[in-house]
Amino acid sequence: MRIACFQGPEKADTPQGNLGRLAHAADEARRRGADLMAAPEMFLTGYALGAEHVRRLAEPVDGPSIGAARQIARGAGIALVFGFPEQDGEAVYNSAIAIGADGAILATYRKTHLFGAVDRAQFSPGQAAPEIFEIGGFRLGLLICYDVEFPENARRLALDGADLMVVPTALMRPFDIVARAVVPVRAFENQVFVAYANRCGAEADFDYCGLSCVIGPDGTDIARAGRGEELIVADLDKAALLGSRQLNPYLTDRRPELYGAVAATMESRT
Amino acid sequence: MRIACFQGPEKADTPQGNLGRLAHAADEARRRGADLMAAPEMFLTGYALGAEHVRRLAEPVDGPSIGAARQIARGAGIALVFGFPEQDGEAVYNSAIAIGADGAILATYRKTHLFGAVDRAQFSPGQAAPEIFEIGGFRLGLLICYDVEFPENARRLALDGADLMVVPTALMRPFDIVARAVVPVRAFENQVFVAYANRCGAEADFDYCGLSCVIGPDGTDIARAGRGEELIVADLDKAALLGSRQLNPYLTDRRPELYGAVAATMESRT
Repeated sequence: MRIACFQGPEKADTPQGNLGRLAHAADEARRRGADLMAAPEMFLTGYALGAEHVRRLAEPVDGPSIGAARQIARGAGIALVFGFPEQDGEAVYNSAIAIGADGAILATYRKTHLFGAVDRAQFSPGQAAPEIFEIGGFRLGLLICYDVEFPENARRLALDGADLMVVPTALMRPFDIVARAVVPVRAFENQVFVAYANRCGAEADFDYCGLSCVIGPDGTDIARAGRGEELIVADLDKAALLGSRQLNPYLTDRRPELYGAVAATMESRT
Repeated sequence: MRIACFQGPEKADTPQGNLGRLAHAADEARRRGADLMAAPEMFLTGYALGAEHVRRLAEPVDGPSIGAARQIARGAGIALVFGFPEQDGEAVYNSAIAIGADGAILATYRKTHLFGAVDRAQFSPGQAAPEIFEIGGFRLGLLICYDVEFPENARRLALDGADLMVVPTALMRPFDIVARAVVPVRAFENQVFVAYANRCGAEADFDYCGLSCVIGPDGTDIARAGRGEELIVADLDKAALLGSRQLNPYLTDRRPELYGAVAATMESRT
């Protein structure tokens, strides 16, 4: 399987403008042989909009922008993952969607770990763990930005059988360490591929890190973007994944009977 | 608090020889102002000995070698952490001990996550999570080598309130990634200090990585050893730790109600 990450746009645009960019990048990714292209968190609208603005732009999964994105996927013949503000009744979620190369919706996911004031002002927290879906013989799961920084959260996705975690993100400075170290370690410790598609450029008070990457189960970069707008492409080798899991049997060497505190809630503690 | 890590010896020696090195290194660490010195996994005897040899050298916590180490700590006026093969009835454990600057035993811990054939041939697995103990106003916990590579295992120690994880280890090539990336990420994601005291040189089939380190809660090296025998020293700043936790509130932003699968055992699944 070949995966592309679109790191962009450099300047936040309207949904219509961003859908145009998505179509352009999807064509380019397909030309370069990619089966799947991931784009950043809140790709459709921009991220740091403020609660009122994001509420005006939010759409349900059956709204016009997701409809247009499904046509883009079908037209280019490539699966797509990207972030968007999802409206559901009165609530707005920081969501990501996976669309198949035939335009079918494969999965949606609402960010469960909200980051700081910017997320909390704009979004309700998701209440459900990501589902597993399949593309090209790989089992995929979605996480969004801060979600992947919680090791137990990525672990639970690995325990559900993920081969590839696809992570739309909006990582800003000074958090380069997440793109450079945390994401590679998530791939290594869980023995999965991780595709981390970040924003770039500046928006409101944020200076995004770029540094989008695709990491192998050995924890090394298969592809790595710089700071600006870029489309990176990486080949994911299923045989290499299975071989790496033999060498690093983390998932089978766990001692879950010792980890109760990790899943203990205030309620389960009382 | 000032902590030292003794990366050595380059060649495995007898318990008597290694206790001499411990005394020498403890004096040097104390001269350099350290309150605590950590030495590697199975420091007392060497690590890759084979089951018969390790069984002959194993001692209980009240045996003569630990007694000698307690005298060394008291004599030098420095707390010590190091690894040794612990005998308990018929069982032999891959253990670590923490001894106060007054010679008192502060904690013992038996490695819970056994690594590959080398550990499984020589040791029984520990059945208990590490206890928290205090030195100089810091809350400490012990892990041994492979233990720290399991994110949920380090997490549970952080949730118990650890400020500093002290990790005697015997990391061999080709696993540089653990010393260079996994250990720094453990410090960052848990907002703790981590002291990782590795072996160096060669033993049986193993070529140890060296690269002992002390990592801050920002995930960067405070001190880092090279490949050979070395004593590294690092200052741990409690105020910096508390400040970093404000900036990176990972422990309070967790969603434990989503992590049930991480602690699920075969029994709890049925």
